Amino acid sequence: MKLNPNYRNLQDSYLFVRIAKKVSDFAAKNRDAKIIRMGIGDVTLPLPAASVSALKQAAAEMGEKKTFRGYDDNQGYDFLKNSVSSYYRQKNVEIDNSEIFISDGAKSDAGNILDIFSPDNTVLIPDPVYPVYVDTNIMNGRKIVFTNGNESNGFLPMPDENISADIIYICSPNNPTGAVYTKEQLTQWVEYAISQNAVILFDAAYEAFVRDENLPSSIYQIKDAKKCAVEICSLSKTAGFTGTRCGYTIVPSELEIDGISLNRMWLRRQNTKFNGVSYIVQRGAEAVFSQDGQSQTKENISYYLENAKIIRKALTERGIWFVGGIHSPYVWLKCPGGIDSWEYFDYLLEKINIVGTPGSGFGKNGEGFFRLSAFGNRENVEEAMDRMQRESY
Amino acid sequence: MKLNPNYRNLQDSYLFVRIAKKVSDFAAKNRDAKIIRMGIGDVTLPLPAASVSALKQAAAEMGEKKTFRGYDDNQGYDFLKNSVSSYYRQKNVEIDNSEIFISDGAKSDAGNILDIFSPDNTVLIPDPVYPVYVDTNIMNGRKIVFTNGNESNGFLPMPDENISADIIYICSPNNPTGAVYTKEQLTQWVEYAISQNAVILFDAAYEAFVRDENLPSSIYQIKDAKKCAVEICSLSKTAGFTGTRCGYTIVPSELEIDGISLNRMWLRRQNTKFNGVSYIVQRGAEAVFSQDGQSQTKENISYYLENAKIIRKALTERGIWFVGGIHSPYVWLKCPGGIDSWEYFDYLLEKINIVGTPGSGFGKNGEGFFRLSAFGNRENVEEAMDRMQRESY
Repeated sequence: MKLNPNYRNLQDSYLFVRIAKKVSDFAAKNRDAKIIRMGIGDVTLPLPAASVSALKQAAAEMGEKKTFRGYDDNQGYDFLKNSVSSYYRQKNVEIDNSEIFISDGAKSDAGNILDIFSPDNTVLIPDPVYPVYVDTNIMNGRKIVFTNGNESNGFLPMPDENISADIIYICSPNNPTGAVYTKEQLTQWVEYAISQNAVILFDAAYEAFVRDENLPSSIYQIKDAKKCAVEICSLSKTAGFTGTRCGYTIVPSELEIDGISLNRMWLRRQNTKFNGVSYIVQRGAEAVFSQDGQSQTKENISYYLENAKIIRKALTERGIWFVGGIHSPYVWLKCPGGIDSWEYFDYLLEKINIVGTPGSGFGKNGEGFFRLSAFGNRENVEEAMDRMQRESY
Repeated sequence: MKLNPNYRNLQDSYLFVRIAKKVSDFAAKNRDAKIIRMGIGDVTLPLPAASVSALKQAAAEMGEKKTFRGYDDNQGYDFLKNSVSSYYRQKNVEIDNSEIFISDGAKSDAGNILDIFSPDNTVLIPDPVYPVYVDTNIMNGRKIVFTNGNESNGFLPMPDENISADIIYICSPNNPTGAVYTKEQLTQWVEYAISQNAVILFDAAYEAFVRDENLPSSIYQIKDAKKCAVEICSLSKTAGFTGTRCGYTIVPSELEIDGISLNRMWLRRQNTKFNGVSYIVQRGAEAVFSQDGQSQTKENISYYLENAKIIRKALTERGIWFVGGIHSPYVWLKCPGGIDSWEYFDYLLEKINIVGTPGSGFGKNGEGFFRLSAFGNRENVEEAMDRMQRESY
């Protein structure tokens, strides 16, 4: 018996454990401190009312013989796929139901889709990065090369013709930086991928935060992207589904490598290893795309974006460099005074009792940077920014 | 870019497609025929009332800021893990919450757990078999050897010291045969696995159908099984969760290979590639283990087992050899007159309008056998058996 030897190459993810320990140690010694948490990537507003009502209705249906549903053997019900394809139509993108795979979330699909690729590929990953892209490829033993996000490119690295890659990760709006590619920039990535015979895994988990129609919220708004890109979407941040679990992945029928359809391979993978998403949850997800659901989710996203605006305003007034926070719930700032990410973490925690996320936890290019999340409540965000304005580092 | 080359070795799963086509062709030509479907492995009774009520309550909680839940970062909430460990305690098995991983179902876990093993292992799979065991290992390029289930061993193959294996699949009560191992037989498998330094993947999806305390409903009722076995469970058949999606997998802390904990590896795998099961669904699952939930699910299972009894009675009266149907919803019968599985399928469909599943679809040892499912409703099962009694093959 041999275990997967690649797991030995994984680093333990100490980032959030270390943050939690520092915060609890500080809180134990400073019982009166009012700690404001701006480190979390989790939502705080409840589900849209339209979803709650659909979830209850679907639960009731499951209790009646006439309306009970067993296996969903189609990787998602057509009622939900129809809603997703209508949503894409609003973005001027045509997607067929057979190209839509309903999932329990972006994390599962981002990890599992690697099953259909050989371990013998080179993966191109931006740094800083959502750690899951790196870890899932280490588990498979793939070679990883990084592109560098930094202050000079606004944390939006561009393709380099001198680098060969087979699988390319792009996340826009980005986690952790909040930066958003333009259509022109994504066009360069699509052209690069096609020239390399590579597949782009486009993580669009934050697409709903894009409020400018000139910015791409789907890679399929870029010419020829259906020939080279898989798009992974989620209702987690769009509609507060982090604890309800529903996402969807698009694998276009045009996407082929050496004449083999990736859509067919992914269908085979999912039919073999996944029995679909709860009918109840799929009804809750369908309601997100209803007229009421859309207006309720837009209201929630506006609330988070207003928080982000308050953060941006405070940083601007303090003269702190940052990206993000316009079409994203994340603001990615440069630690003032040239200090490193953990020093700034300690300063914020100890001096003004704010918890954020050290950028160095997202890769080497994150060193000296820091992530603030706009997913908290308004009062706390305002108070945190007041504290930042009053205290000079 | 290289695709996973192992997918080329997969056979397309035509079984249920072929069945569906034959049935629809027959139905189109015989519009008056009342076709009774006994091929399905899906449940038909609605969710227990306790679960429906818990699901609705949890959906309501998700709509209120005070009770809203985001990410479950523990691979399952303790409220559900506590219920699972209490359930095991009734089986005289002690399981710690850290050994319980809540999942969206047995199929996902049975496929995904292979991630932690090297492709360079030999897998031992019984034939006939649930096709997912075979396909998931082909996708990883593992060597597969089969043990033979047949009439003489009652479709309960036993270990053979001359065969080397690293990963061993056991499903009891079995799908498709309905056969159940005794404690003595499972003890032999555990001893064999330990002698081989192998890991048993024990599929206990049908454990709730075991109604005899002398028969094992968990492999952990066998001495030393925690040293060599992972147990994969599901509420799909237990509580009608095929469309609601919840299961749980046990990876004992004692289970180590070369000093490496499989529990830690699986935790790392799940934390990296899975964001947990919907809070709402976990509350529905918790209710299955409540006093009301247990009495409601037992009632449903008794209903299916009574169907199975009606099938067994008819077969016995016709002198047809079979196994299963006592502690299982499946009855596995020998096609009368020495005909093959598809011939018997055609006969049943065309002459008495009953749909079952040809045994040959589950592996070469299934040829000449046939599966009938007890998941239908009573009236149909009774009518189907009346038809079988009246018609002689």
